[in-house]
This record gives sequence, structure tokens and C-alpha cells, in this order.
Amino acid sequence: MFFSARFKIESMSADKKKIILEWKGNFRFEAKNPNGLTVTFDAPKKYGGDETAPSPMETLLACLAGCTSFDVVNILKKKRQNISGYWVEVEGERRDEPPEVYTKIQIKYVIKGKKVNKEAVERAIQLSNEKYCSVGAMLRKTADITTSYEIMQE
Amino acid sequence: MFFSARFKIESMSADKKKIILEWKGNFRFEAKNPNGLTVTFDAPKKYGGDETAPSPMETLLACLAGCTSFDVVNILKKKRQNISGYWVEVEGERRDEPPEVYTKIQIKYVIKGKKVNKEAVERAIQLSNEKYCSVGAMLRKTADITTSYEIMQE
Repeated sequence: MFFSARFKIESMSADKKKIILEWKGNFRFEAKNPNGLTVTFDAPKKYGGDETAPSPMETLLACLAGCTSFDVVNILKKKRQNISGYWVEVEGERRDEPPEVYTKIQIKYVIKGKKVNKEAVERAIQLSNEKYCSVGAMLRKTADITTSYEIMQE
Repeated sequence: MFFSARFKIESMSADKKKIILEWKGNFRFEAKNPNGLTVTFDAPKKYGGDETAPSPMETLLACLAGCTSFDVVNILKKKRQNISGYWVEVEGERRDEPPEVYTKIQIKYVIKGKKVNKEAVERAIQLSNEKYCSVGAMLRKTADITTSYEIMQE
């Protein structure tokens, strides 16, 4: 695959993935990958949780943000863009009735740097959303995902 | 809603969710919810990452495990089951070509306790997977999700 040769991160993710998640009492759960790296979940205090970590549905938005950002940052690097800062704001609206899936998700990309090329940014976002972002391709089946961006020239 | 009255955690998640994710250099990203609770992502060393956190696609499986476990543990509590330990093993298989979505996901629930009722466990897993688990309802559109369970009586 042409893309995998250029962006190694893509081929990394093609293998089988495994996670073990353990209940830690109340609403706290800890997930571990086979190398012992962890991610934790909790519920807010107002719902009886201890509020020590984001909820699974918040973390789902974070996965989308992380996945598309792996693509966008790396495509911009390959396009030799001089990026000094980068962040993404993701907002999700949900169904009122269970299952309370996301029905609308907005992703706003903010790219900071010197002489950042507008077309390179648009192309990177487009490639991630239309072709490479695995999390996006899955969530898009129930959620209408829209994107926007802002370039902060230094 | 009848269910929300019994399982408060469900109504918690119906509001709008927001995450801001920031690039921390190389493949490292940090996501924050509005209360400042974080989740981080990285890539393995063999792909150029620093391997300080799970990848977004690994964390996606963790979200599924966490979401269904919120349901299952709380339904079992309401059914007055005496649970002393609980964990979930989740394995996902992916498409070879981008987008490398999950095509098959297996969830194995392990419930440990005294006189744990088999029917209560089966019903909790069924309710989560068929009705309440929001993450599962989204991932199920591309992945065939199968479940199994083991009860370890003490």
C-alpha cells in the first residue's frame, strides 16, 4: 500500500487489538492494552461517580479527535508545513432515548505555525475524513460529522 | 424514562459532550473534557511513537468495554447480585485497507461473586448490547459484535 509506506502509523493499527478492562468499584474502570498502558473511566459526582476520569462517551469523542489528528499532523509534516501548535475541538450531540448515540459531531481543527498553507490543511483534513481515519469511518455511520478549521499564522 | 429513573448513569450522558485535544509533539496527544479530566494517546515505539499511552483505536475498544460495563455492573447491582470482581476482555479485528475499521469485535465478560445468578448476568449483557450501550450501538454499524461470559462462583 502506497500510503502505509509513507505514513507508517496506518499499518501499525491493522493488527488485532486487545483490551482488558477491570471494575475498580463504583463507576471506576481501568482498561489496559497488552503492554500495560492504561485508560480509565468514571462518572461525574452528580451521578454517583467519583469523577476521576472522563466517561466512555466523552472518551469516544477523544478517540475521534486523536485518530484524525494522527493523520492530519502527519500529513502536514510530510507536506513540510511548519507547525508550532495544533489542537482540535470536538462537540457531539446525542439522541435523547437509549441507545444515546451521537447524531451530530463537529470537529474544529486549529493549526498554528509559520506560512501554513491553506490548501495543505484542507487536503490533510479531507484525506483523514474521507479515507484514513478509522474511528471517523465507524462513528460516521450514526453521526453526521462536520469539520472546520482555523489557521493561526505566526 | 423508566430506565433513567433506575439507572441514573444513562441520563448523565444525554447532554452535549465536548473534548479539546492538543498535540504534545511526535505522536502524543492529550484530550481534556470541560472539567479538566484527561485521556492521552500515543503510538508504539516501532512506529516512531513514544509508547506512553494506548492508540486511539485501542482506546476505542476500551470505550466499548467501559460503556457496556457501566450498564452490566449497574444492572447486576440493581438485581442485588453479590459481585466481588468483574472484568471484560475485548478483541477487535480490522480491515486491511484504510479506513481500517473494526469488522469483528468479541466481548468476554467475567463476573466473580457469591451465588451469582446466570439469568441475571445473561439479561444484563443482553440489555446493554441490545438497548443501552451507546458506544456499542455505534460500533455495531461496521463491526459484528459477539459476546460471551464466564461466572466465577466463590
